Amino acid sequence: MMEHLTIKRKKTRPVYVGDVQVGGGAPIVVQSMTCTDTRDVKATIEQIGRLEDAGCELARVAVPDREAAQSLVNIKKDIKIPLIADIHFSHILAIEAIKNGVDGIRINPGNIGKEKIREIISAAGERDVAIRIGVNAGSLEKEMLSKYGGPTPAALVESALNSIAVFEDMGFYSIKVSLKSSDVATMVAAYRLISDKTDYPLHLGVTEAGSIISSSVKSSIGIGILLYEGIGDTIRVSITGDPVTEADIAYRILRTLNIRRVGPDIISCPACGRCEIDLFRLVEEVEKRLAGMKEYMKIALMGCVVNGPGEAAEADIGIAGGRGLGMLFKKGEVIRKVKEENLVDVLMDEIEGEVASRRKHAE
Amino acid sequence: MMEHLTIKRKKTRPVYVGDVQVGGGAPIVVQSMTCTDTRDVKATIEQIGRLEDAGCELARVAVPDREAAQSLVNIKKDIKIPLIADIHFSHILAIEAIKNGVDGIRINPGNIGKEKIREIISAAGERDVAIRIGVNAGSLEKEMLSKYGGPTPAALVESALNSIAVFEDMGFYSIKVSLKSSDVATMVAAYRLISDKTDYPLHLGVTEAGSIISSSVKSSIGIGILLYEGIGDTIRVSITGDPVTEADIAYRILRTLNIRRVGPDIISCPACGRCEIDLFRLVEEVEKRLAGMKEYMKIALMGCVVNGPGEAAEADIGIAGGRGLGMLFKKGEVIRKVKEENLVDVLMDEIEGEVASRRKHAE
Repeated sequence: MMEHLTIKRKKTRPVYVGDVQVGGGAPIVVQSMTCTDTRDVKATIEQIGRLEDAGCELARVAVPDREAAQSLVNIKKDIKIPLIADIHFSHILAIEAIKNGVDGIRINPGNIGKEKIREIISAAGERDVAIRIGVNAGSLEKEMLSKYGGPTPAALVESALNSIAVFEDMGFYSIKVSLKSSDVATMVAAYRLISDKTDYPLHLGVTEAGSIISSSVKSSIGIGILLYEGIGDTIRVSITGDPVTEADIAYRILRTLNIRRVGPDIISCPACGRCEIDLFRLVEEVEKRLAGMKEYMKIALMGCVVNGPGEAAEADIGIAGGRGLGMLFKKGEVIRKVKEENLVDVLMDEIEGEVASRRKHAE
Repeated sequence: MMEHLTIKRKKTRPVYVGDVQVGGGAPIVVQSMTCTDTRDVKATIEQIGRLEDAGCELARVAVPDREAAQSLVNIKKDIKIPLIADIHFSHILAIEAIKNGVDGIRINPGNIGKEKIREIISAAGERDVAIRIGVNAGSLEKEMLSKYGGPTPAALVESALNSIAVFEDMGFYSIKVSLKSSDVATMVAAYRLISDKTDYPLHLGVTEAGSIISSSVKSSIGIGILLYEGIGDTIRVSITGDPVTEADIAYRILRTLNIRRVGPDIISCPACGRCEIDLFRLVEEVEKRLAGMKEYMKIALMGCVVNGPGEAAEADIGIAGGRGLGMLFKKGEVIRKVKEENLVDVLMDEIEGEVASRRKHAE
C-alpha cells in the first residue's frame, strides 16, 4: 500500500468484550445498538441477528428497567456477538445486567454517583465484564458544566478522567472510553485531548447525529477525522432509523479510509451532460443486487470516456458508457463491449466470477 | 464561538467567477454541475434554477460538442448564478464557450495539449474568464502516470503545477485548482501537498463518489478533513443522482464544521429501547416539513430524558419524549408539555415563530 494510504494508529491497551478484542492493535470494531424494546426478547434477538448479518461485531441494548435487565439472560442465549447493556441512572440495573451475563456495560458517570459506581466496578471485576465510561455532552455532571460553562471538550475529558481514577483506584482496567457530543467540532477536540492523556481504547461516535443522510455526513466527518489521525478503536454510527444502516455506514467509513476493506466500493460518476447511458438506473440496480455483499471489490460504473477508462483501470471490475453500449473492464483490461440492456447482468456475472475465483485461490 | 470550533483558513488569493469571489477569505462557495444534456437549453435552465433554489452558488455544465457550446448563450440569459463550462479534449470548444459568455471554464490539463492551452488562456484573459485547472486521477497525463507509477498525490500535484506554470508564463492568474481522485486518501494527500505549494484557491471534491449515501460518506470524509485543516475555497459534492442533493450535502458538511450555517441542524437520537415516542416517524415528518429551509436553527428531537433535556437545552428549539407526551424546550427552557399527536404541529409553529422573530429583529 502506498505511504499516503497508511494510517499510523495510536497505541492503546487491549480490552476484551466477550471474545472481541478492542484496542491493542486489533482491527477497529464495528458496533451498533438495538432500537427494540429490550423487554421484547424475540424482537431484540431478531434485530441483533440482522446486525450480525450486517457485520456488526458488538451489540448494545438499552436497559431502562428491571424487566429489561432480566430479559438479558434470554437475549444472550440466542445471539452470536457479545452483548453490552446500556445503563443510565441506576447502579442496581447495572449490577443486575452483569449478573445476567452481559459481556460489557456502558455507564454514564454523569448520572450515577461515585459511590454507586464502585459497586458496579466490583460486580464487573468479579465476572470479567468490560465497562465503557460513556461521557455524553447532553448528560454531563452539573459540576463540570458549571466549572467549564458548558459541555466543552475539556469538560468532557475531565469527567472521563475523574471516572477513570475511580476505576483504577479499585484495580479495574477493563475500560473503554467515549466522549460523545452532537457537535462534531466538540467531539473531535475532546477525543484528541483524551487520546493524549490515556491509553484506554476509545469508542468513537457522534451522538444524536440524526437520520441516515444527516448521520452519514456528521459521523463521517467526526469519526473520519479522528480515524485518519489514528485515534479510535471501535466505532458506532448513531442513526435515527434501522440500526442495520449503522453497520453499513460504519463499514463505508472504514473502507473510505482504507482501514478495513469490507463490501463493494462502487465508484460512479455524477452523470453530467456527457453521459451516454442511463447511469442512475444502472447504479441503483447494481447497488440493489450487491446489497449484503461482504467481499471487498472496487467496481467502477462510469458514464463516458473522459475518466471512465482511467477509473475502470484502477478498479477490479468496471464499465465505461458509450452510445447504448458499455465497455467492460477487468483489472485494467478491456474485456468486451456490452449492449446497455445487458450491462447489469454481464457485470454481475463478472463480479460473481471474481468472488468465486478468489474463494478458490483462498482454499 | 469557542476556540475549538474555529477553523483557521489557509490564505489564498481571490479569484472571481462572474460576481462570485472564490478564495481570498470569501465564504466557502458551494457549487454543483448539471446532469442534463446541455443542448437541451430548457431542461438545463430548469435544473440550474432548482440548484439556485437549493443555495448553489456556481453552476457547471458539460460542453461535449459544438451544439452544447452554442446553447451556453441562451442558458446564460436565464440563470442568476455564474455559469462554468466543463471542457475536455477540445480547445476549440473551450474558446467557443468563452466567446459565448461563460464566467468560468474548467479544463483538464491531462487531455488538452500545452500549446492548445495557451490559446484558451488568451481567450479567457481577454474576457476575464476564470479557469479551473481540474486535474483528475482518472485522466492524468501519461507522462505523470509513468513517472510516478500511477495517479499518486505527487503525480496529481506535479500535473497541476506544470499547468500553473504555463498560465503564469502568460500573465494569467485567475486560476482555481482541483486535484480529484475517487480514492479519498489520495485526494486528501494531494490537496495537502498542493496547499503548501500554491496560494491559488482550491476547489475540493471527491470524484466519482457514487450515489447519495456513498458520496455522503466519501465526500464528508475527504472534504471534511481538508476543510477542518483550513484547506479549500469552494466545494463540489459529486453524487450519481439529482444534483440538488449535491448542494444539500455540501451545506451539511459546512454546517457540521461550523463553517457556514445554512439550514436546520436536526439533532435526533437513534431511539433505543428507552425511547417512549415514535421518534422515527416524528423525525421524518419534521425533515419533510423543513425541506428547503435556509435559516440556521438547531432543533433537537430526543426520544427520552437521558440526554433529551441536555441536548434540548443546547438547541434553539427541542423536544424530549415521554410516555405519549413531549416536553417542548426553547433556548433551554421548558415551555410546555405537548401530546405526541400534536408535537409536529406545535414544533413547526415554534420554528416558524422563531424565524419570524429573527426576521423582525434583523429589520
